[in-house]
Amino acid sequence: MALRVAVAGASGYAGGEVLRLLLGHPEVRIGAVTGNSNAGQRLGAVQPHLVPLAERVLEDTTPEVLAGHDVVFLALPHGQSAAVAERLGDGTLIVDCGADFRLRSAADWEKFYGSAHAGTWPYGLPELPGGREALRGARRIAVPGCYPTAVSLALYPAYAAGLAEPEAVVVAASGTSGAGKAPKPHLLGSEVMGSMSPYGVGGVHRHTPEMAQNLSAVAGHPVTVSFTPTLAPMPRGILATCSAKATPGVTAQTLRAAYEKALRDEPFVRLLPEGQWPSTAAVHGSNSALLQVAHDETADRIIAISAIDNLTKGTAGGAVQSMNIALGLPEELGLSTIGVAP
Amino acid sequence: MALRVAVAGASGYAGGEVLRLLLGHPEVRIGAVTGNSNAGQRLGAVQPHLVPLAERVLEDTTPEVLAGHDVVFLALPHGQSAAVAERLGDGTLIVDCGADFRLRSAADWEKFYGSAHAGTWPYGLPELPGGREALRGARRIAVPGCYPTAVSLALYPAYAAGLAEPEAVVVAASGTSGAGKAPKPHLLGSEVMGSMSPYGVGGVHRHTPEMAQNLSAVAGHPVTVSFTPTLAPMPRGILATCSAKATPGVTAQTLRAAYEKALRDEPFVRLLPEGQWPSTAAVHGSNSALLQVAHDETADRIIAISAIDNLTKGTAGGAVQSMNIALGLPEELGLSTIGVAP
Amino acid sequence: MALRVAVAGASGYAGGEVLRLLLGHPEVRIGAVTGNSNAGQRLGAVQPHLVPLAERVLEDTTPEVLAGHDVVFLALPHGQSAAVAERLGDGTLIVDCGADFRLRSAADWEKFYGSAHAGTWPYGLPELPGGREALRGARRIAVPGCYPTAVSLALYPAYAAGLAEPEAVVVAASGTSGAGKAPKPHLLGSEVMGSMSPYGVGGVHRHTPEMAQNLSAVAGHPVTVSFTPTLAPMPRGILATCSAKATPGVTAQTLRAAYEKALRDEPFVRLLPEGQWPSTAAVHGSNSALLQVAHDETADRIIAISAIDNLTKGTAGGAVQSMNIALGLPEELGLSTIGVAP
Amino acid sequence: MALRVAVAGASGYAGGEVLRLLLGHPEVRIGAVTGNSNAGQRLGAVQPHLVPLAERVLEDTTPEVLAGHDVVFLALPHGQSAAVAERLGDGTLIVDCGADFRLRSAADWEKFYGSAHAGTWPYGLPELPGGREALRGARRIAVPGCYPTAVSLALYPAYAAGLAEPEAVVVAASGTSGAGKAPKPHLLGSEVMGSMSPYGVGGVHRHTPEMAQNLSAVAGHPVTVSFTPTLAPMPRGILATCSAKATPGVTAQTLRAAYEKALRDEPFVRLLPEGQWPSTAAVHGSNSALLQVAHDETADRIIAISAIDNLTKGTAGGAVQSMNIALGLPEELGLSTIGVAP
Repeated sequence: MALRVAVAGASGYAGGEVLRLLLGHPEVRIGAVTGNSNAGQRLGAVQPHLVPLAERVLEDTTPEVLAGHDVVFLALPHGQSAAVAERLGDGTLIVDCGADFRLRSAADWEKFYGSAHAGTWPYGLPELPGGREALRGARRIAVPGCYPTAVSLALYPAYAAGLAEPEAVVVAASGTSGAGKAPKPHLLGSEVMGSMSPYGVGGVHRHTPEMAQNLSAVAGHPVTVSFTPTLAPMPRGILATCSAKATPGVTAQTLRAAYEKALRDEPFVRLLPEGQWPSTAAVHGSNSALLQVAHDETADRIIAISAIDNLTKGTAGGAVQSMNIALGLPEELGLSTIGVAP
Repeated sequence: MALRVAVAGASGYAGGEVLRLLLGHPEVRIGAVTGNSNAGQRLGAVQPHLVPLAERVLEDTTPEVLAGHDVVFLALPHGQSAAVAERLGDGTLIVDCGADFRLRSAADWEKFYGSAHAGTWPYGLPELPGGREALRGARRIAVPGCYPTAVSLALYPAYAAGLAEPEAVVVAASGTSGAGKAPKPHLLGSEVMGSMSPYGVGGVHRHTPEMAQNLSAVAGHPVTVSFTPTLAPMPRGILATCSAKATPGVTAQTLRAAYEKALRDEPFVRLLPEGQWPSTAAVHGSNSALLQVAHDETADRIIAISAIDNLTKGTAGGAVQSMNIALGLPEELGLSTIGVAP
Repeated sequence: MALRVAVAGASGYAGGEVLRLLLGHPEVRIGAVTGNSNAGQRLGAVQPHLVPLAERVLEDTTPEVLAGHDVVFLALPHGQSAAVAERLGDGTLIVDCGADFRLRSAADWEKFYGSAHAGTWPYGLPELPGGREALRGARRIAVPGCYPTAVSLALYPAYAAGLAEPEAVVVAASGTSGAGKAPKPHLLGSEVMGSMSPYGVGGVHRHTPEMAQNLSAVAGHPVTVSFTPTLAPMPRGILATCSAKATPGVTAQTLRAAYEKALRDEPFVRLLPEGQWPSTAAVHGSNSALLQVAHDETADRIIAISAIDNLTKGTAGGAVQSMNIALGLPEELGLSTIGVAP
Repeated sequence: MALRVAVAGASGYAGGEVLRLLLGHPEVRIGAVTGNSNAGQRLGAVQPHLVPLAERVLEDTTPEVLAGHDVVFLALPHGQSAAVAERLGDGTLIVDCGADFRLRSAADWEKFYGSAHAGTWPYGLPELPGGREALRGARRIAVPGCYPTAVSLALYPAYAAGLAEPEAVVVAASGTSGAGKAPKPHLLGSEVMGSMSPYGVGGVHRHTPEMAQNLSAVAGHPVTVSFTPTLAPMPRGILATCSAKATPGVTAQTLRAAYEKALRDEPFVRLLPEGQWPSTAAVHGSNSALLQVAHDETADRIIAISAIDNLTKGTAGGAVQSMNIALGLPEELGLSTIGVAP
């Protein structure tokens, strides 16, 4: 009894990664794959790594094409998901890799996206407290942003245990696939190889309110995040260096104990042994998040660092994991914790 | 009824890739994993991407530790396989990722390796004419070198069809993992990033006689290969640009027809549509070989280009594929044609 | 007595490199810098590495703007140089980094560029026999293509000495800046990092007839070149692996002697000591070409390998070197043989 | 009247960069170049980019060899400089690229380096308030660490103007050359390409007290720095993302005004125009530091980001700049603000 699954936006990086994972999912049969400007092209021409789908032809992204599937993954520019969802009806599980339904606060949405808020869907980060419950049986899923996934996983155990003061500082490095496949001069290989550069500095990156939303919910009080994203010379991966002032009495031992307790049963989040630090290479192509935490005694700050693959755990893997939960399938189905390294 | 499989040399790149693939093989249970200088360490400390095996401890590479397995993969420095194999006996399928048993010619072995020839085992490149027959039921397998895999796949259809003159010229670019994990100054990231450099120039690279052996067998007459390997700034992948003078009467059409015919039923070798050229990114972590071929009319040469992942199809994937054939399992079990891209 | 120099096409990679070198040239004062779509922008916005010119504003590329300079460098798309040159008159030295005036054969031009041949200018590769003489006092210079520079330097000593048969085989790897700054999907960092790929395979790359022209002139008889360019994951650099069947009687000794003799007095071409091979890292940002040569005895082929920086010796450095000669300045003025490594 | 200059540790990355810059310095003649394990080798074998010095032979690092020079640059492992300095006497200007004499606090030295404190030399960061005065006429110079250079330049204008609270948070990404040329497994190209990873987390990196020392001196009160270094997949460059809570009343305008005022006359530090952010590519091989600053209103934090080349402004360039000041030469002699990009 295979699920029939469509992917809208299959010519981009997020859509391609959804397809890569679905090809290895034992309960899935891939139905329509759609693009926009690429409609009519063979998938092999734009996603040559997806060899088994090379002869598939990209269709237009229309409700007609997407109808008749059990699950539809949307990997579209923001602002387009609501219209598609309306037409598909509740019989279809819609997993939106875009931003439209992530934020609870309409004011935040309007401030950061400059358009009307479309609403809020169940949030696809199962590891957050209550996260799995919110997804079971859901017919709509808002997949988190890649940075919020990395940051929320790194810091939620500290906030859940009351070990971190409410002002977090995050500097994260992302591979260039996070910036998408639309060609822009600053994303050329000639520009990014050998170069690190920041962007969206000063609290203006759209993932900022999503991080604050997640951590505030865990903490039970408002948490602000000062977030600086940087572009790193690698195609995939996020390394998020997250810190916050420690609450009184925190020690390396209480900190580690809190993380061990919070993460003990998580299938995709691994607290590394003491002294070992995560690298993005180790999670390349996998749905793992690798974590380590330290207490900077001089500055009295908690430093939590996570490494994820922005396209896998940060997008398509998180999406499939959430789909599994929503449909009552084993959470790990079709997903791997094993990175492709070196 | 799972096979119990050991991996000797599990702390290196080849051994790590064997383990990565075996973890996804449905008929395999991983037994002993051994190292040398790393014995006693957790595998997670040296192969952090192999999350499910992180708590495994590397054992010494001894016959005692390797005994009692159905299959033993050897990823050892050359010269060590014969002694291990002798002690294990014929009850164990031994898959040697090293060079010791690849060459048929003792003279070639002695010239290129400077030691006594250990012998010749069935050769793990199933795609060559007669390749699968030689592997069925084998208890010993010599896995081809990574460059010979890429080059033989690119050129054998031309030689099998009599379209190429017997002097081949090959220039191949390899990712740095092909040079192994032993730290050497010229392999430092600082040295290789942003740099292309040749090595083993002038016919002295040890993979040269292996290429000539394969192509000569296909052609039915001696073929020489002028081979220049280059080190490319990427961790994985081989792009092999292979050419030879065309025999009289060759056209683009006859050339393509020969390749289509030769590769039609190959599960892991894909001739790309006309006009599309392979890239190593598209086969990252996959067992695919992507091929394209052209006829340079002015120079009257056949140009055949292949892209493989040196660690997967070029080593560990080819090894697992050959194991499957030897044991009568479906050839594609545990292997993927899907790359991790971008 | 400084020369007043203009650069047309200053927002691209070639133009930017010309400016980088001119800023260090003691006899040059930089006049107009022009762009097209970028006209009106500060240069600092598009070439942030050229700090001393950050506040300069890009002007339109018109004859009026370019008039009144002693030297004008053109870094324009092909097909535009003739019109500009006509308007500037013979009082101005025009150094064309584009292709328009490189080829002597109108038939070759028409076959490879598909338009009418504009003519032939003195060719800016001083190292070729007679090269300097052709440039002295010239008012027009056609700067060679980056690949032809690398390949001609690698092979001309062999052809000049009659050591190579007339069919050359070249495989070259280029950094991505060779493909320019116009954003295209396949040039995105996400696509090129970790990937090698060929393009223009089968004798169709436009630099092919230019190589044949140079080597044929040196040899005194027609030489064909089977040329395969590949894109490497680095921003700069060309590694050209060039080979040809040796003529009868060639040995490693005669080969080396020929190269030593040919290159002895060249300020920018260095034959490395025996056993050392060139890397593109060592010439990063420099005007050096590093060479090594070997005789593959089994295949009886000459293997000559060169490394250059495609933007420096391959474009802007070669242009400045030729300008120096044309104007009677010391050939090395403003140019460095020192790479920026690691 | 050229200065005779020796470089000790010339086979490493810092020593190589010192030589690269000295080769372009009009007042310098290069004397002895020394190594340790590499003594006796041609410099061309270990630093192939330094073409003009290729035939120089590395000598032993002894007082005898280093004697008789006007200036000696030391690029040695820490702990070795004091002994060399004692033997050379006050007639020689010694510029130490190592850590031995950077810290004023013996307690900090002992805590972070675990050995006895050798002393404190004039500190080679001219841009700090009073920095130039301290260097004029100096016979001993302690070149700052690469990270402290990047961080101090980014934050000192804020602390000097009283705009930042005393707890700074720094996350910096460095190219791999910062980790040196001694081959270690985690520095292999195979490991670092495509990967970001942290190290020295939790306040234990040895550059931490140096940053605190510099910023505290500027602020006039103790400043703590929570510092997390990360290794980035590039050979060179540091991007330092530095932040601190703003003091009451700070606005984007007051912040920018303070930076403009502080940096107005600095030849090597450039505050970018509003809206433009630094990249390490733009300073590749140059002595420039590019800066930008923002006020995150929601978090009320100052975000200051600097990009430098860790080997140039971060080591050898800062060293030459300081030498120039010490000797009364023009500060910019032999140094460039122009990066090699792309």
